[in-house]
Amino acid sequence: MEVTAPYATRQKPQIPINAPLLHRILVAFIRDEVHKVGLERMVVGLSGGVDSSLSATLAAEALGPSNVCGIMMPYRASSAESLDHAELCANKAGFEVTTVDISPQVDAYFERFPEADAMRRGNKMARERMTILYDHSAAQRALVLGTSNKSELLLGYGTLFGDMASAVNPLGDLYKVQVWALAAEVGVPEVIVGKQPSADLQPGQTDEADLGFGYREVDDLLYCMVDLRYTRPELLHAGFPEAFIDRVQLMVRNSQFKRRLPVIAKVSNRTIDRDFRYARDWGR
Amino acid sequence: MEVTAPYATRQKPQIPINAPLLHRILVAFIRDEVHKVGLERMVVGLSGGVDSSLSATLAAEALGPSNVCGIMMPYRASSAESLDHAELCANKAGFEVTTVDISPQVDAYFERFPEADAMRRGNKMARERMTILYDHSAAQRALVLGTSNKSELLLGYGTLFGDMASAVNPLGDLYKVQVWALAAEVGVPEVIVGKQPSADLQPGQTDEADLGFGYREVDDLLYCMVDLRYTRPELLHAGFPEAFIDRVQLMVRNSQFKRRLPVIAKVSNRTIDRDFRYARDWGR
Repeated sequence: MEVTAPYATRQKPQIPINAPLLHRILVAFIRDEVHKVGLERMVVGLSGGVDSSLSATLAAEALGPSNVCGIMMPYRASSAESLDHAELCANKAGFEVTTVDISPQVDAYFERFPEADAMRRGNKMARERMTILYDHSAAQRALVLGTSNKSELLLGYGTLFGDMASAVNPLGDLYKVQVWALAAEVGVPEVIVGKQPSADLQPGQTDEADLGFGYREVDDLLYCMVDLRYTRPELLHAGFPEAFIDRVQLMVRNSQFKRRLPVIAKVSNRTIDRDFRYARDWGR
Repeated sequence: MEVTAPYATRQKPQIPINAPLLHRILVAFIRDEVHKVGLERMVVGLSGGVDSSLSATLAAEALGPSNVCGIMMPYRASSAESLDHAELCANKAGFEVTTVDISPQVDAYFERFPEADAMRRGNKMARERMTILYDHSAAQRALVLGTSNKSELLLGYGTLFGDMASAVNPLGDLYKVQVWALAAEVGVPEVIVGKQPSADLQPGQTDEADLGFGYREVDDLLYCMVDLRYTRPELLHAGFPEAFIDRVQLMVRNSQFKRRLPVIAKVSNRTIDRDFRYARDWGR
C-alpha cells in the first residue's frame, strides 16, 4: 500500500481532552444509570489510585456523597500509602469509607495451594474484592461502580470477573491520559493524580514496568488503532515503531475474551447475547 | 388485537428435542472452542446436579476424560448426596475430580458480617466457586466450562460473576427440558437426571419451590416468548395464564443486567462492546 498525501495530516493526532465536558457527561451518566433502576447508591472499591478515586469522586457528585460507600480492601502486603490516599480522596469528596481486609479469606485458600505464583494470587485477590463489592451492594441496595479505563480494558491489563466486573463504569471509554486530566479537573488530590500507577500487588510494582511501556505512548497508539482505525501503513507512517505496534495489537487481540460474555453454543433461533438481546427484541 | 385463524396452528408448540443432534453439535463446539485458543483442557465445577454433570460429560467426550478436571466445592452445609452424585458422574465419564472446601474462606468473610441473609451468603458462595475455578484454570492451562442453561439465564436464576461466569458454555441455549433429554442421551447417571433440581444452599431446597413454578411449564412459556416471539395475545390464546406471563416477563426484563456486560459511558467514536467489538472491526 502506498503512503500518499492525506497521511501527512494524520501524523500522531492528539487524543481529545475536554475535561469540563467529560465531567458534565459522566456525572449525568452515573446519575441516570443509578436512578433509572430505582436505586440511589453506589459502592466502589478504593485502591488509592487515580481510577477509583476519579470514579468515586464523580459518583459522589452525581448521587450526593452520602450515597457513595468507598470500600478499601487491603491484603496484608498492600502499601499503607495506598490506604492513606484512598482516605484522602474520600475525605475530600465527602463520602464514607470502610475497610474489609481480604487477608483471612485469601490466606485460607492459598494455604492449600502454596505453589501458586504471583499472577494467580493477584487474580484471586482481585476476584475476592469483586465478591465483597457485590455483597456490600446487595446489603446496601446499591450498584457496583466500575473503575477500569479504556487503556487497561483494551490491553487486557485487569482481572476478568475481578476489577473488570461492575454494574456501571464511567471510565471505560477514557484513556489513561484522559483519566489524569479529568481527575485534576474534578479535584482528585494531586498526590493521587501525580503518582505512578500501580496494581499494588508487590512493593515498588508499577503498571508501566509491568507493561513495558508508558501509558502516554500506548494511549497515542491505541487511539490511532482503535478510535481512528488507522491501517498498519498509516500507523508506521505516523511514526509508531513496528515492534510496538505488533506487541500492542497482539495484546488487544489476545485479551478480547475479557471484553465479551461467555461463549454460548448456538442451537436455537434466539440465543442469549446473539439474537436475543431483549432491549432490541422487546421494545413493544 | 383480534385473535384470528393463524393462531390455531400455534397453540402450545413443542420445544424441539433432537438429543442425538445436540450431542454431536455440542461435543464439536467444545472441542473447537478449546483447541482454537491453543488449549486442551477444561475445569468444571461439579455440583452433583444435572447441568454440571451434562457439561462435564460432554467435555470429557470432546477433549478426552484426562483433559477434564471436575472440582467439587462444598460448603459445610452442602448435602453429602450432592458429592456422591458428582463422583458418580465423574467415575462414569472417566474424568478426575478434586475437592476444595469453601467453608474456611466463606466463614472468614461472614464472621465480620453475621447479619447477612441467605441470599447474600448464597451469592458469595457462588462467586467464591467462580474464583476457585478460574484459579485452577490458570494453574492447569485450562478453560472454565459453563453450566448455566437457557431457562436459568433467561429467568436470572443464577449469580452474576458466580455460576453464570465461564469461558465456554455448551448449555446456554438449552432449556432445562432439553438438558434432561440430552443428559439421558449421553449417559449421565439416571439418579442425577431424575432428581429434583436444587441450588443446594439449604437442606430440602428445590429450584421449583424457589421459583414458584415448574421447569416444564416455564420452558414452554419461554420458548413461545423468546424463541417464537409470540405476542401477548398469542400467549394468552395458547392458554398460558395471564399472571404467569406477567411474572415471567418481569423476571426476564429485571434480569437483563445479568446477561450483558458492564454499562460503559460512551464518550468516544469507538467504545468497547458498542462500536468496537474487534472480531468484526479487525478482520483485516
